[in-house]
Amino acid sequence: MRYGFGIDVGGTTVKLAYFDETGALLDKWEIPTVTANRGEAILPDIAASVLSYINKNNISRENLLGIGIGVPGPVSDEGIVNRCENLFWGVFNIHEKLQDLTGLPVKAGNDATVAALGECWKGGGQGCKNMFMATLGTGVGGGLVIDGKVTLGAQGAAGEVGHMVLCRDETEPCNCGKYGCVEQYCSATGVVRLANRRMAEDNAPSVLRKTERLTCKDVFDAAAAGDAPAQEVLDRFYRLLAEFLANVCNVINPEVVVIGGGVSKAGQPLLDGAKRYFDRFAFHANRNVRFSIAQLGNDAGAYGAFKLALDALGG
Amino acid sequence: MRYGFGIDVGGTTVKLAYFDETGALLDKWEIPTVTANRGEAILPDIAASVLSYINKNNISRENLLGIGIGVPGPVSDEGIVNRCENLFWGVFNIHEKLQDLTGLPVKAGNDATVAALGECWKGGGQGCKNMFMATLGTGVGGGLVIDGKVTLGAQGAAGEVGHMVLCRDETEPCNCGKYGCVEQYCSATGVVRLANRRMAEDNAPSVLRKTERLTCKDVFDAAAAGDAPAQEVLDRFYRLLAEFLANVCNVINPEVVVIGGGVSKAGQPLLDGAKRYFDRFAFHANRNVRFSIAQLGNDAGAYGAFKLALDALGG
Repeated sequence: MRYGFGIDVGGTTVKLAYFDETGALLDKWEIPTVTANRGEAILPDIAASVLSYINKNNISRENLLGIGIGVPGPVSDEGIVNRCENLFWGVFNIHEKLQDLTGLPVKAGNDATVAALGECWKGGGQGCKNMFMATLGTGVGGGLVIDGKVTLGAQGAAGEVGHMVLCRDETEPCNCGKYGCVEQYCSATGVVRLANRRMAEDNAPSVLRKTERLTCKDVFDAAAAGDAPAQEVLDRFYRLLAEFLANVCNVINPEVVVIGGGVSKAGQPLLDGAKRYFDRFAFHANRNVRFSIAQLGNDAGAYGAFKLALDALGG
Repeated sequence: MRYGFGIDVGGTTVKLAYFDETGALLDKWEIPTVTANRGEAILPDIAASVLSYINKNNISRENLLGIGIGVPGPVSDEGIVNRCENLFWGVFNIHEKLQDLTGLPVKAGNDATVAALGECWKGGGQGCKNMFMATLGTGVGGGLVIDGKVTLGAQGAAGEVGHMVLCRDETEPCNCGKYGCVEQYCSATGVVRLANRRMAEDNAPSVLRKTERLTCKDVFDAAAAGDAPAQEVLDRFYRLLAEFLANVCNVINPEVVVIGGGVSKAGQPLLDGAKRYFDRFAFHANRNVRFSIAQLGNDAGAYGAFKLALDALGG
């Protein structure tokens, strides 16, 4: 049996995990991400943590296939990191650098696509070779797995579906400067925006009017409790979400759509709501696509990073 | 040097071509597609034509790597054809059947995706590993090349972008039964439909009013000749085409968008028109995508079929 590390570098913490080659997560821990001085301590800190784990547990290097690592920015196949804004990193080869520090082979990828790979391997897309993962959080991100591999596209932006056009008549600009992007409706902030718009339409009584600093969860809770305007908001949201998901499926024809991110905490009602309108927008070949909620939570990145290493280095 | 055949099976003719392994098309010819008796003669006819070509030209079998073939329907990786309506074919293994008939290894694929592979290899997408090909004909089809390989998706429907939703408020149904599909605006028939709608809006004088059985080419010709309503029609078309192309790019982040099909005969003005509105809808990472017109015409399928065989059988 061979073993390896899967590492997910975030803006505040680095998640590290130790796996066997079947994908069983044997151990996991976190260290802080020290972004001072253009993040120069991040890789040495990771290397020290990995080396200390190896020593403490008397792990034989013979059985280690290497390290997979996901970082919040674009990474080329050869390991060239091309700026990670959140880490203050510039351009360098992370494969070489982390290999020099640890003596282990390294394979790196973008964190969002790596998380999608993790969900496809051991989470909501398990058993599938073609998956679309939509991450509905503060914004909307995503990742594509095609024929079992994460797809990066020409500039590492494949699956960056948050800025697809959904409502060309939108009058408020998206953060990206365009109008009517998916992110303006299908994110947690999008749900709140739809709720505020609904409140402004008339004076229908709603618990949402009494809620300060409305959150996405407030809208779901109010709808579940029978608040009619909140239910209307979710109905609009589900219709837009369905159209967005159908259009992605109409491009890549996946077996499964996995929904992750904060909004996915709504669970089965979210899947049912999106499914209710999906067939209206989907080409017939895509109507039997399976919907599921992401299952690995914060561990998806570590799973996917290890899988990336397994595929690239596992021979 | 090794050689092989690339074959494109259409509803009325089968196009056959002989290539060397660099992709030089050395010879090409056609035979009729005999669809009588559930198309049972099609593969024997192809085999007879290939064998006769081999004998006539004293080609050594040692140097032949095999046959690539594109068919108008879904084909699995193992060669299982799952109904080709136009050929009246049911379900069978085309790899085995054509290999039995010719003694040569066979690799089959769907005709639209195979044509996309051809354009990526030797046509408008040459030199690129990530391509979206949009075929704007009577309908709208397409194909995706990702990391140098054609992508089929779960049911062979990847790249079938003609039924993405573009205008959810559309009141006329698409042939597929849905409303507001890309095909209703961005095909040759879609351009005619947009023109007829424009004519119905007012009484502005236009040469299009005097044209019986309006065609897509009539609209382009009138616009080029300065007809203002025709120019307005194309402006609407370009805006919709740009939104559609941008949304596909926002999913897969290609290096190049290749436009083929009858509408692509409009050439550079079509590319300029789409490019004019593209940035309004594209995520910033996709704004430097290259646009080009398909270059291989009716030979794209043969090129792609041979490339499919070269990748699968060329070792």
